[in-house]
Amino acid sequence: MHHSVSEADAARIARFRPASGMETPRFAGLASFMRLPVRAPDSAEGVEIGLVGIPFDGATTNRPGARLGPRGVREASTGTRMVNHASGIAPYALAACADLGDVPVNPIDAAATCRRIEAFFADLRGQGIVPLAVGGDHLVTYPILRALGQGRPLGLVHIDAHSDTDDVQYDGTRLTHGTPFRRAVEAGVLDPRRCVQIGIRGSMDAADERDWACGQGIRIVTMEEAVARGLPEIVAEARAIVGAGPAYLSFDIDALDPAYAPGTGTPEIGGFTAREALYLVRALRGLDLVGADLVEVAPPLDPSGVTALAGGQLAFEILCLLADAVAARRAGAG
Amino acid sequence: MHHSVSEADAARIARFRPASGMETPRFAGLASFMRLPVRAPDSAEGVEIGLVGIPFDGATTNRPGARLGPRGVREASTGTRMVNHASGIAPYALAACADLGDVPVNPIDAAATCRRIEAFFADLRGQGIVPLAVGGDHLVTYPILRALGQGRPLGLVHIDAHSDTDDVQYDGTRLTHGTPFRRAVEAGVLDPRRCVQIGIRGSMDAADERDWACGQGIRIVTMEEAVARGLPEIVAEARAIVGAGPAYLSFDIDALDPAYAPGTGTPEIGGFTAREALYLVRALRGLDLVGADLVEVAPPLDPSGVTALAGGQLAFEILCLLADAVAARRAGAG
Amino acid sequence: MHHSVSEADAARIARFRPASGMETPRFAGLASFMRLPVRAPDSAEGVEIGLVGIPFDGATTNRPGARLGPRGVREASTGTRMVNHASGIAPYALAACADLGDVPVNPIDAAATCRRIEAFFADLRGQGIVPLAVGGDHLVTYPILRALGQGRPLGLVHIDAHSDTDDVQYDGTRLTHGTPFRRAVEAGVLDPRRCVQIGIRGSMDAADERDWACGQGIRIVTMEEAVARGLPEIVAEARAIVGAGPAYLSFDIDALDPAYAPGTGTPEIGGFTAREALYLVRALRGLDLVGADLVEVAPPLDPSGVTALAGGQLAFEILCLLADAVAARRAGAG
Amino acid sequence: MHHSVSEADAARIARFRPASGMETPRFAGLASFMRLPVRAPDSAEGVEIGLVGIPFDGATTNRPGARLGPRGVREASTGTRMVNHASGIAPYALAACADLGDVPVNPIDAAATCRRIEAFFADLRGQGIVPLAVGGDHLVTYPILRALGQGRPLGLVHIDAHSDTDDVQYDGTRLTHGTPFRRAVEAGVLDPRRCVQIGIRGSMDAADERDWACGQGIRIVTMEEAVARGLPEIVAEARAIVGAGPAYLSFDIDALDPAYAPGTGTPEIGGFTAREALYLVRALRGLDLVGADLVEVAPPLDPSGVTALAGGQLAFEILCLLADAVAARRAGAG
Amino acid sequence: MHHSVSEADAARIARFRPASGMETPRFAGLASFMRLPVRAPDSAEGVEIGLVGIPFDGATTNRPGARLGPRGVREASTGTRMVNHASGIAPYALAACADLGDVPVNPIDAAATCRRIEAFFADLRGQGIVPLAVGGDHLVTYPILRALGQGRPLGLVHIDAHSDTDDVQYDGTRLTHGTPFRRAVEAGVLDPRRCVQIGIRGSMDAADERDWACGQGIRIVTMEEAVARGLPEIVAEARAIVGAGPAYLSFDIDALDPAYAPGTGTPEIGGFTAREALYLVRALRGLDLVGADLVEVAPPLDPSGVTALAGGQLAFEILCLLADAVAARRAGAG
Amino acid sequence: MHHSVSEADAARIARFRPASGMETPRFAGLASFMRLPVRAPDSAEGVEIGLVGIPFDGATTNRPGARLGPRGVREASTGTRMVNHASGIAPYALAACADLGDVPVNPIDAAATCRRIEAFFADLRGQGIVPLAVGGDHLVTYPILRALGQGRPLGLVHIDAHSDTDDVQYDGTRLTHGTPFRRAVEAGVLDPRRCVQIGIRGSMDAADERDWACGQGIRIVTMEEAVARGLPEIVAEARAIVGAGPAYLSFDIDALDPAYAPGTGTPEIGGFTAREALYLVRALRGLDLVGADLVEVAPPLDPSGVTALAGGQLAFEILCLLADAVAARRAGAG
Repeated sequence: MHHSVSEADAARIARFRPASGMETPRFAGLASFMRLPVRAPDSAEGVEIGLVGIPFDGATTNRPGARLGPRGVREASTGTRMVNHASGIAPYALAACADLGDVPVNPIDAAATCRRIEAFFADLRGQGIVPLAVGGDHLVTYPILRALGQGRPLGLVHIDAHSDTDDVQYDGTRLTHGTPFRRAVEAGVLDPRRCVQIGIRGSMDAADERDWACGQGIRIVTMEEAVARGLPEIVAEARAIVGAGPAYLSFDIDALDPAYAPGTGTPEIGGFTAREALYLVRALRGLDLVGADLVEVAPPLDPSGVTALAGGQLAFEILCLLADAVAARRAGAG
Repeated sequence: MHHSVSEADAARIARFRPASGMETPRFAGLASFMRLPVRAPDSAEGVEIGLVGIPFDGATTNRPGARLGPRGVREASTGTRMVNHASGIAPYALAACADLGDVPVNPIDAAATCRRIEAFFADLRGQGIVPLAVGGDHLVTYPILRALGQGRPLGLVHIDAHSDTDDVQYDGTRLTHGTPFRRAVEAGVLDPRRCVQIGIRGSMDAADERDWACGQGIRIVTMEEAVARGLPEIVAEARAIVGAGPAYLSFDIDALDPAYAPGTGTPEIGGFTAREALYLVRALRGLDLVGADLVEVAPPLDPSGVTALAGGQLAFEILCLLADAVAARRAGAG
Repeated sequence: MHHSVSEADAARIARFRPASGMETPRFAGLASFMRLPVRAPDSAEGVEIGLVGIPFDGATTNRPGARLGPRGVREASTGTRMVNHASGIAPYALAACADLGDVPVNPIDAAATCRRIEAFFADLRGQGIVPLAVGGDHLVTYPILRALGQGRPLGLVHIDAHSDTDDVQYDGTRLTHGTPFRRAVEAGVLDPRRCVQIGIRGSMDAADERDWACGQGIRIVTMEEAVARGLPEIVAEARAIVGAGPAYLSFDIDALDPAYAPGTGTPEIGGFTAREALYLVRALRGLDLVGADLVEVAPPLDPSGVTALAGGQLAFEILCLLADAVAARRAGAG
Repeated sequence: MHHSVSEADAARIARFRPASGMETPRFAGLASFMRLPVRAPDSAEGVEIGLVGIPFDGATTNRPGARLGPRGVREASTGTRMVNHASGIAPYALAACADLGDVPVNPIDAAATCRRIEAFFADLRGQGIVPLAVGGDHLVTYPILRALGQGRPLGLVHIDAHSDTDDVQYDGTRLTHGTPFRRAVEAGVLDPRRCVQIGIRGSMDAADERDWACGQGIRIVTMEEAVARGLPEIVAEARAIVGAGPAYLSFDIDALDPAYAPGTGTPEIGGFTAREALYLVRALRGLDLVGADLVEVAPPLDPSGVTALAGGQLAFEILCLLADAVAARRAGAG
Repeated sequence: MHHSVSEADAARIARFRPASGMETPRFAGLASFMRLPVRAPDSAEGVEIGLVGIPFDGATTNRPGARLGPRGVREASTGTRMVNHASGIAPYALAACADLGDVPVNPIDAAATCRRIEAFFADLRGQGIVPLAVGGDHLVTYPILRALGQGRPLGLVHIDAHSDTDDVQYDGTRLTHGTPFRRAVEAGVLDPRRCVQIGIRGSMDAADERDWACGQGIRIVTMEEAVARGLPEIVAEARAIVGAGPAYLSFDIDALDPAYAPGTGTPEIGGFTAREALYLVRALRGLDLVGADLVEVAPPLDPSGVTALAGGQLAFEILCLLADAVAARRAGAG
Repeated sequence: MHHSVSEADAARIARFRPASGMETPRFAGLASFMRLPVRAPDSAEGVEIGLVGIPFDGATTNRPGARLGPRGVREASTGTRMVNHASGIAPYALAACADLGDVPVNPIDAAATCRRIEAFFADLRGQGIVPLAVGGDHLVTYPILRALGQGRPLGLVHIDAHSDTDDVQYDGTRLTHGTPFRRAVEAGVLDPRRCVQIGIRGSMDAADERDWACGQGIRIVTMEEAVARGLPEIVAEARAIVGAGPAYLSFDIDALDPAYAPGTGTPEIGGFTAREALYLVRALRGLDLVGADLVEVAPPLDPSGVTALAGGQLAFEILCLLADAVAARRAGAG
């Protein structure tokens, strides 16, 4: 069932249609996300969902390259079309979407970049724009959550190979791509009891490295548990954990197996297939999502381009969720 | 159970054995399909199955490169051996196979190329040679079907991410790699009620884009349905749809997930694994196949070469089906 | 010596500055040419130089991929900066430059695409915009020349491995990437006696294949002659041939040696180094250029990306020539 | 349940800890296996498990490159950490592990290299060091088995696409990467009735090519059987076949599907996923393993590096098995 | 000046024309050398120049991959055309050329392979066929020289980064890709005083490693000397050294700088450019060449393909020399 | 002329010989720099030249990847041998060389990393070890210079495409890979009047961006000047500028043209060839070098590996300079 859209809304929304591949080839034109219109954040009137690049990988402790993720995902995303064939969601008919460009990062200064990101997304929140961010390394999620969760601790579905709830590394560095969710819980912008992490795997630095997260009430579903119990059961539990409140979806491309996503800084074998990832994302329809991100696509590490491809197509799937949520809220508010 | 071959036939067939990897390495020698003998179409006496390259990608609306598919698949196919380990089929003992070279395409002119392809395959049909074509983009299937289905509308098993039943694109272009099956139905060389498409997925240009195909009676099995019901059930239905009449198998390599086949123009995540593809092809044994193709392998888009590898090994599997069908018909006629 | 710019012009021009790499990293933001502002051709008021992509390779008779050239060159060009360190030209201070997007090509129909290109560039000419086109295969130069040379046959500096003055191929195909300059001479939009081709090399289909061009008066400088006589002498002759009239510069990336530009459809060993190419382009300063192009960059054929890099940096050099010419004409008209 | 380690042993073992990624990044420092300390075999006192490279591919009959496997696997293995998240095994707390460098191979002489390998591993056996070898092509397993099985024919779990029990090739060559297990059975160092091969697939040179192995009592589980019956059943049978006696694990990376491991000489589509491989390896815990190897990683054939990644992470999993076995034997002996 | 060809010869020669790129695209059809007709050595009547692949790299002491050289060079060579644009030589009008397939090598046994190569080329010599061999590693030159120099010690122009006159390696291995010219001198099939090596460079294992070669009278021109004196002077000296007697040309692709030929086992920076290589080869016209080879192209080490491209185009240049020599001898004999 | 070495020194030095490629293949064994022995800095007794990796690219403002430079250069450097064929220098006979591992960097914190680097190199200086550092991005040179130039401002030969004398970027970031030499001059550890930068090129952010450097007395030789005047003249001037005092050599791999070194973060076309780079480095023999570095090799950006190859072979050349300088000082002190 699709949410109805008023005629006035439909007219407004229609100004934000992607270029059609039936008229010009998908490889033509500047590569904006999904071939959407480009708007600067200060002239984004009418926009409901803003796609934003965050080309920062200065907090990665492994192989770099995710700073080139936004360009790679933009290019790959131009292959997506108008309608989700599985869910029937037509995102560009449900909500006004635009490419809002990139956050002005400082590649050398993680703290300064976090401040810029937080300000950027706070501004979007002020305008009522729901963001879909494309990283960049996973640290970028922390300032986004600060902006979106300020005053309303969010629920979280976090799909990833890693829990990213470390504390410090290298004698005290606190802002790394391994710490965003710990920092966000500490900052009070995530409600740990409404958080679920799915797909966690890979060897550990210490046997107790997940104790903090579990102690906070974060639910960690390892890849082994996900396989053993089956995704339908996992998704049902995840939906119950997150509940009806405002929630955020963070998708780290390394949740996928390296066969599907070799181009990422910290790959771990034994991950999800693309089909499973599609199932997971689609199954989250109906959550009250107020934002989402897709991170850790590192194009230089993948000469075949399948990582950016998966990133671009999953970004489309996530966009469908957000458009559905926007339309639901609009309908609810109507 | 394998079809028996008379002594006279066996002697004739024995002249068409591939070079053996036990005598010279598989990487040695010119790369013909499966290291088979090479024959020009006008000196193909005794040949029962002809492998043919069609190095044309001038009808692709996405990323090009499939014109280099025949060379890539030839090279990769030299790694295949004599006997199918799963089915036990020994194709070179069942039928006389040869590499017949490439159709003389015009890379710039789709219509002229279609005429040349149709003439080439009509000639093979006239000689009683069953073709296994290697593309090239998917448009090439249309003129093949015109040649093989003239006077006997064929059934079809079509394994692909895309239905390829579009009508026109870019203000009226009718011959693209997205239209071959529509054109073939219009030309009366495909019987749509005996057609099944398996693996269809990916976002759609419009919500109604599959209406024409379904309206004609073509059965579309989406990837989601295939996963939900399971391949055995899908295959059983496909066999029932195609029935006992003459049939064609068209395998677009993008049916595979991009992890398995990154080297193709229009990849869609969430596709078949190679194991599923092997299952599907092998399960079609016994259909009355009069030809087949494998298309859309684009080597420049895959630096690891797994796409051509999958293409070459699936071509061997399809060849086993054709050899079995040839032997069945010979035995039936005997 | 640099052309002076009036205060009023400077103010107008200042609205078209690229994003600075000192403020946001060069890998940030959508990849427009040189990080320039983007304007649609129908809202290009004030623009003096328009960078235009032509993502078409449907006329290539060799390896495809140049349709992806505009995206590759755009991305690589974002690494260029504000001032030419060798000539001192500051193009964005001399002329108002913008990225005008791509021509809406039809990848399957060379004739239709030529019509669209011609109309696109005729419109730019009507607006007084000097184009810098990025291909695409070399056929695209033909319709550009039709638009720019209509009524005023142009002079030409053509840097390339191939003369591209063939007549027909494959039983009569006349619009290929090997024929644009013959077609342009036939159409009366090029003045062959003011045309010079530099860097021609590679084995020939026939001993007399350059007779037509030479017979028309086109001056062909082979690579061997260029090396033997030295570039200063070649450039002096080229400038004399082209003279003071309106002229066009066409740079095929395969003029470079494959070590410098592997990502192109028809590479020929023994080409120019990048240093020589920089010398050649810079030495053309002062010609009355009314347009230019850079073609045949095929990113899928170059996993290291140096071809697009050379393309992007040479496009900047060519842009400096055009900006200088625009400023010269403005100054002359003032 | 984990085996207990005495305080004295723990102190000794603690001298062989890998460098921690929490202190210096995993990409820092010389790439030893798992960032372990490096010891020459003649100064390996205290070492219980020795990781050894065998950079030899001179016996491969297909695409070469596995001679570069040890370096590739070393580098990729530096991303593994201290504790197995699935089994809880902390190998560096259970056994003293070290990188013992490479066997001094002769790339041109397979027989000489076999002698050197056998001597190298016989020496390790003499020192009571359990080896984990990283190839190299699969021939290297033969001399290892000669060293380890001398006087005590071993059981074997062999995970591979190929049975590698050929006899001769090319007029009598007996030492190839297709023959190690036949040679080992002939040499009396493998007990064929305690041998199981899992994942065998790919077309065959002859219908009877597995007859010798089966005739000897080797149990061959094809990929098709493994899929049909499910891995738990297969593993149970394998454990029963190998039994309680001393055993060896040989893992050929081409057991994985080419999507997961494109960088290998003789890829066969339809292989195991990485998740299945992890399951298989982990399920072998408890066997009395006296050595193991991981072979046929050929980095030049995989520009994305996922093959070496899978190799490095599977090597860690195998190391966990060996450490567990060492601790079990130590506890049993204590 | 070109050698005249009698009408009868011209008619015979005309049966061995390559397929024309003006009729079918160069990427079409099986990849034979230069798209030439294929003949087995035992049915090569009328052939004067035979192109032969030797897919063997079992004697390489560095990175492997040259066994895939013949396929890579064949594919790249299909881009060459009919006439040498620099020299005007039209090889297919001067001599009957054919692709004679590959020598049946044993990848594991260097000695056996040498015997097979020698027999193969002795047979060609017996038929009066001049060979152009494509390796394979450089050891293959040794058995070729044994076949061609038997009874008439040959002169040699050897273009390479390495002298390849080592004696033994690894405790006595005498047949490696570093020893062919020492072995050939020892066998009496090379006349060392008529041998010149050009382009030698790279660090040395010992200060006296060139003493043996110099002591024999072989003239070694280092890269540094070649640069300092200039190629014209070097070539003049080389021609004087080789003189008028029968001679052989051996071109190791690693003579080129790695920028031009990254795909080779033992690259050394500071090598020839492609333009210099073309100059060197063309300048050898007029030598009494009785055979030639091009070796050490290793396609897996070069994802951009420029190495095979250089190999294919240099092979065409060498073919022009051989055709000229064949025509000269025919004219001289006439 | 080579510096003599006393018998006692020769005996000490002989303990630090690299593994020989005549005994084990160059691809065997752990990849230490030049296959040298590995010593920790705290047990480096007897070492005179220490090769050190600095795997840090956290200060790069362009494409990352140089953190993987030390591993890439180590691996490529294993192909170098014992004696410089051009100069005759045998570095391992002149000085005791060892691989001292990597500086323990913090990938996220440039300031902390600078402190660690400075401390590391100050310790080496205290031990009398001359360092050859391999980066990493160019910022790493700044703390090295702080350690080596403390109390004795150094002269500098700086070979690079970029001057790297910027002041700040992104609102005040002072430690970037574009600022090391400005910071070093400000810190008084470089004597700007004894500094020369060679090869500078590429477009500029502002017309006056080199004013600061020139104002300080640094001599900037652009690529254009270097080509115009010729390298012998440039080198003579550089030697005169640096003079007889203690000096440092910093080689940024992007000084090479991208054809020779595509794998670097900020490539600029029109750079040096490898032959020119060899000439430049060798021509610096005799300077009183107290340290050197080679930086900005970014392996993920170069799938062919030629960049790391150039880095490894140039590192050998630089090592020859350092060994010569060490021997000269030893001889002078003796």
